[in-house]
Amino acid sequence: MAATWETSVTESINTIYLLFSAYLVFIMQLGFAMLCAGSVRAKNAMNIMLTNVVDAVVGTISYYLFGFAFAFGAGSHSNPFIGTSFFALENVPNETYGYAYFLYQWAFAIAVAGITSGSIAERTQFSAYLVYSFLLTGFVYPVVAHWVWSSDGWLSPNSGGSLLFGSGAIDFAGSGVVHLVGGVAGLWGALIEGPRIGRFDAFGRAVPMRGHNATLVVLGTFLLWFGWFGFNPGSFSRILVAYPDAPHEGNWTGVGRTAVTTALAGSAAGLTTLFGRRLLVGHWDALDACNGLLGGFVAITSGCSVVEPWAAIVCGFCAAWVLIGLNALALRLRFDDPLEAAQLHGGCGAWGLVFTGLFAHEELVVQAYDSGAVGASRPFGLLMGGGWGLLGSQVVEVAAIAGWVSLTMLPVFYVLHKLRLLRISVDEELAGLDVSSHGGYAYVANSEDSHPGFYADYVRTHDGPRSP
Amino acid sequence: MAATWETSVTESINTIYLLFSAYLVFIMQLGFAMLCAGSVRAKNAMNIMLTNVVDAVVGTISYYLFGFAFAFGAGSHSNPFIGTSFFALENVPNETYGYAYFLYQWAFAIAVAGITSGSIAERTQFSAYLVYSFLLTGFVYPVVAHWVWSSDGWLSPNSGGSLLFGSGAIDFAGSGVVHLVGGVAGLWGALIEGPRIGRFDAFGRAVPMRGHNATLVVLGTFLLWFGWFGFNPGSFSRILVAYPDAPHEGNWTGVGRTAVTTALAGSAAGLTTLFGRRLLVGHWDALDACNGLLGGFVAITSGCSVVEPWAAIVCGFCAAWVLIGLNALALRLRFDDPLEAAQLHGGCGAWGLVFTGLFAHEELVVQAYDSGAVGASRPFGLLMGGGWGLLGSQVVEVAAIAGWVSLTMLPVFYVLHKLRLLRISVDEELAGLDVSSHGGYAYVANSEDSHPGFYADYVRTHDGPRSP
Amino acid sequence: MAATWETSVTESINTIYLLFSAYLVFIMQLGFAMLCAGSVRAKNAMNIMLTNVVDAVVGTISYYLFGFAFAFGAGSHSNPFIGTSFFALENVPNETYGYAYFLYQWAFAIAVAGITSGSIAERTQFSAYLVYSFLLTGFVYPVVAHWVWSSDGWLSPNSGGSLLFGSGAIDFAGSGVVHLVGGVAGLWGALIEGPRIGRFDAFGRAVPMRGHNATLVVLGTFLLWFGWFGFNPGSFSRILVAYPDAPHEGNWTGVGRTAVTTALAGSAAGLTTLFGRRLLVGHWDALDACNGLLGGFVAITSGCSVVEPWAAIVCGFCAAWVLIGLNALALRLRFDDPLEAAQLHGGCGAWGLVFTGLFAHEELVVQAYDSGAVGASRPFGLLMGGGWGLLGSQVVEVAAIAGWVSLTMLPVFYVLHKLRLLRISVDEELAGLDVSSHGGYAYVANSEDSHPGFYADYVRTHDGPRSP
Repeated sequence: MAATWETSVTESINTIYLLFSAYLVFIMQLGFAMLCAGSVRAKNAMNIMLTNVVDAVVGTISYYLFGFAFAFGAGSHSNPFIGTSFFALENVPNETYGYAYFLYQWAFAIAVAGITSGSIAERTQFSAYLVYSFLLTGFVYPVVAHWVWSSDGWLSPNSGGSLLFGSGAIDFAGSGVVHLVGGVAGLWGALIEGPRIGRFDAFGRAVPMRGHNATLVVLGTFLLWFGWFGFNPGSFSRILVAYPDAPHEGNWTGVGRTAVTTALAGSAAGLTTLFGRRLLVGHWDALDACNGLLGGFVAITSGCSVVEPWAAIVCGFCAAWVLIGLNALALRLRFDDPLEAAQLHGGCGAWGLVFTGLFAHEELVVQAYDSGAVGASRPFGLLMGGGWGLLGSQVVEVAAIAGWVSLTMLPVFYVLHKLRLLRISVDEELAGLDVSSHGGYAYVANSEDSHPGFYADYVRTHDGPRSP
Repeated sequence: MAATWETSVTESINTIYLLFSAYLVFIMQLGFAMLCAGSVRAKNAMNIMLTNVVDAVVGTISYYLFGFAFAFGAGSHSNPFIGTSFFALENVPNETYGYAYFLYQWAFAIAVAGITSGSIAERTQFSAYLVYSFLLTGFVYPVVAHWVWSSDGWLSPNSGGSLLFGSGAIDFAGSGVVHLVGGVAGLWGALIEGPRIGRFDAFGRAVPMRGHNATLVVLGTFLLWFGWFGFNPGSFSRILVAYPDAPHEGNWTGVGRTAVTTALAGSAAGLTTLFGRRLLVGHWDALDACNGLLGGFVAITSGCSVVEPWAAIVCGFCAAWVLIGLNALALRLRFDDPLEAAQLHGGCGAWGLVFTGLFAHEELVVQAYDSGAVGASRPFGLLMGGGWGLLGSQVVEVAAIAGWVSLTMLPVFYVLHKLRLLRISVDEELAGLDVSSHGGYAYVANSEDSHPGFYADYVRTHDGPRSP
Repeated sequence: MAATWETSVTESINTIYLLFSAYLVFIMQLGFAMLCAGSVRAKNAMNIMLTNVVDAVVGTISYYLFGFAFAFGAGSHSNPFIGTSFFALENVPNETYGYAYFLYQWAFAIAVAGITSGSIAERTQFSAYLVYSFLLTGFVYPVVAHWVWSSDGWLSPNSGGSLLFGSGAIDFAGSGVVHLVGGVAGLWGALIEGPRIGRFDAFGRAVPMRGHNATLVVLGTFLLWFGWFGFNPGSFSRILVAYPDAPHEGNWTGVGRTAVTTALAGSAAGLTTLFGRRLLVGHWDALDACNGLLGGFVAITSGCSVVEPWAAIVCGFCAAWVLIGLNALALRLRFDDPLEAAQLHGGCGAWGLVFTGLFAHEELVVQAYDSGAVGASRPFGLLMGGGWGLLGSQVVEVAAIAGWVSLTMLPVFYVLHKLRLLRISVDEELAGLDVSSHGGYAYVANSEDSHPGFYADYVRTHDGPRSP
């Protein structure tokens, strides 16, 4: 028996919506690669771009084999901590999850390790990268996703009977699940590795260490914004869902509003940073504005679907100051994170979770999490009169993520460090990772033919050993 | 009562169509940033990219607060000149406008100021940019949009009873509303500022002043093409509209055909420019081909939905010569517009409006503007036998936009000029805006660590004041 | 009579799905332009980007005028070799083909010549490029598309009664039709032109000739990946098709699974290349990983819709070794293809066709080619127990394409060669194509104003002859 007309239409519409959203999220991988490349020195550009490529290719295989299973596996052995079915897409598609859902979640998974790679850029051995990236993408992240996004998870706001504080955490598109996880991992990595050589002088004063290409930073930032329109509005998963008691509204309304809150929060944060930094340092800084913008997006990612547009502006405004403050603190503490990833994704991600606990709107929470069911009632934002249940859950999510990622990734980085597998040698750091590990620089300034010279052994890249 | 199945399906389909179109239009902001960056000298790259970022973030906040209200506000106080409701999205969503529609229009609004920034690139104070950008995006542009695109507007082809010349102007996706507005503003800005230092020598001869990176120009051009597939086909707003009397046709047909006419017009213009410039200057010029391509897109933007594919080729062919001619004229008049924005967006935009008045096809006009209503009749292209009503309206739109933008923006630029707030000093212009206003160059050629040196005060960018 | 509700919904959904897929395929043109630009030396960057622009603009006009007609023309004069109707979109839209379908196929057509341009990069006269590009896009490629993708084609798996070996070839999105065609043409072009000056030294040893910008290569690779999500999943053409006997499945399932197999094959190939090349040359090479990734995508393009996810990993794993092996062979034979296009698109394309003949899954073949008709039966993968019919057809497709493209393009390149119209002079090659044919370099290193100097005659680009 074929699918009914209604089923066919519903599935087709939801699939288009979710797949194209997944494609947008995927292009964030490019955005991040460009942002990172532009933010490091030219001699390490190839290295950091390769880490982004590796996140994608390793992540695809590992998320297919077991990441998705850890995150969304359900069934008889299901538990609140980790999923245990759907390995290698066995029994997918099923009534709950289709291929489009897998692809959408895959695009999220490959993004996490990229955040961390920003924190430890320009000084990390590539093999160490392979180890931590595999563990983070394949295990640490999926477990957190299971807690919050699967219906079995102990932090889930959907898990039938027993919700944490009667609420569960609202982390709609992952300020915590994605960004805080990546940021905390980056924090430990950067702390254990220590600053790049020359980042602070003998007196502990910060020495500017500018990225090599601001155009790439802007390119990456806009691509990330573009992709965020998949990240946040796409997280409804299904667009064709009508709300009872609202003759014209359904998830299609929520999807549109989520795109609006996303743009507003990012813009408010970008604008605040632009003027704030103008006051603080005296010039109009494009790179700061870009980072502020991204901080606003990170912060709104948790509550994007459950707050009103005006609240999104508040969210972005505060996110900008969180970022400015944490960056100042990082300088004071001689903490060196080349992409400000720990501050941006960690700090603004945590703020985003708290913000949702303060500003979530009752009706919108019911729409996003109960499909607008008549009579449904659950805690919402504290400042909106919704009590402490939601805010409590949000704070628990922050603490749980910080604890879990520390518990798992700190030992990983520490062991790699002790085995001398984490940081590259001083010579390599001065020469740059591209020439020491990747066969040559990213750029060749050849108005005429390049001549094989000192680095000939390195630059045989595409040719393999010379023919005899 | 929940939305009916029919409503849910219709809303979901139209929302997907419009939102993803909006995302495509948004990515044009990146395309324009890259095009502009590549077309200016390296020392001003950061400046012009920041203007594109600022267009987006300022535009988001201002269009949310009042721009959308000025453009589409309706209701009891509605008038043909300016909208007066929906400030800060109050009463949105409603039966006419949803969040997706807002987002779509927002993506258009933030594009306008970027056009103008190209005309005055490499010599304008950043604070002057903030002023004119805010006024243009927040007031000048929304008023024109109201005239043509809201059903209350005096130039609107939809406004119930009284249409200008029984027709109203057909500016489907904004050859006039978007491009001509930006181009006329740029014309005045560039005229008042005068040419860049060194652009014309002591004898008044043009001196080549090449952009620093052709790769960015090609990158920007293709991204703009990509985005134009949202700009033009997306302007139907709704795809699920069947035409009476046409058993298989509806807006879905129109959307597809509009994508085809768009590609054809751009390609015809690009090809014409490539061969035309080959004849005129003797080499095959990629940058000219790119600009020609964009000129074709600008021109077809007005009539994309109401002309047949063959006519789109005519449109593009002529647009190429309009651009070539205006560029020659600009040289003769010592007019310096680094991006050719006044010529391209202004000139080809005006041509596009006239073209529509000549070639609009009767049936397609009725389909696009009356949903194919049986018996509907309205003026169409003069050369297609449709009388003077439409062409007259198109010419009035050109004149009205030129007048309105001149009336509002000329004083703005003039006052800024008189207050010495418009143009940067000679020293700053020679040094470049990036180092004088934005904390450092866009590019750092550091195969080894960058050393803080002469520009140390400028390049502290990401670090704030040094710790004591 | 208006379209029924069912028709309207169906057409709207399928149009959105196909148009947005077409846009994604189109952006591959940008991806290819960036990949090519980054892979050549700076002095030829403008040239190769212009070829990509020209592919698009020439291809748009020629595919509109006759390419689509040759490929999909049907009707009374239809034959298995070439289409003969729908010139200039006459009688389009019709019951079979709409505008969206044309646009989707157009985006494929303009991609083919770009593949070939990679093989003959850095040494080909631009006018020769115009000739072969026009012939390849306008005639050679459409004929192959007709064979395999139109229902009249002699290789088609859809052509009613008489299928080749009772099967027809399964080349879902064009491993053969697109990639093998471009690759074979590139092979002959590169062979006839011979290697670039300096590519092999006096002893026949390969001399490294690195591309000038690895960032552009990574940018291009990710854009191509992004676009491949349109290329492969989009090739279902219609998403709203339910399968009989499967209460929840339809083309929407197939579309999602195709996106998954695509990502898996590319990732498996990228990962294999990364580790394989690490073992062979001793470093982690980002550019090799990118090329491997692309090889995996090329290979899965044929069978993406008819194999299970695990098989896609096998496909990608083997594609990586095909590429590594062919690159080694090319070096040994002193074959110089700057983009490895013949090896990558030709070699992996051919492997992809064979792979489908080995691994195509019975049920999935029936779903993709008979809409899951109950009782339908046709040959499928040999290793899956499906007999020799499909594998035989696949091998015939490889041979037929190799023969046809050789038969048509070899004479074209040979005649151009004999007329001294194919390769540029030694002086031009040493100076670079950009300065000799395109009016100047792609990059200007101007921290201060550029001064007209030695190349003044070339760089008048945007200004035309100086005013007297």
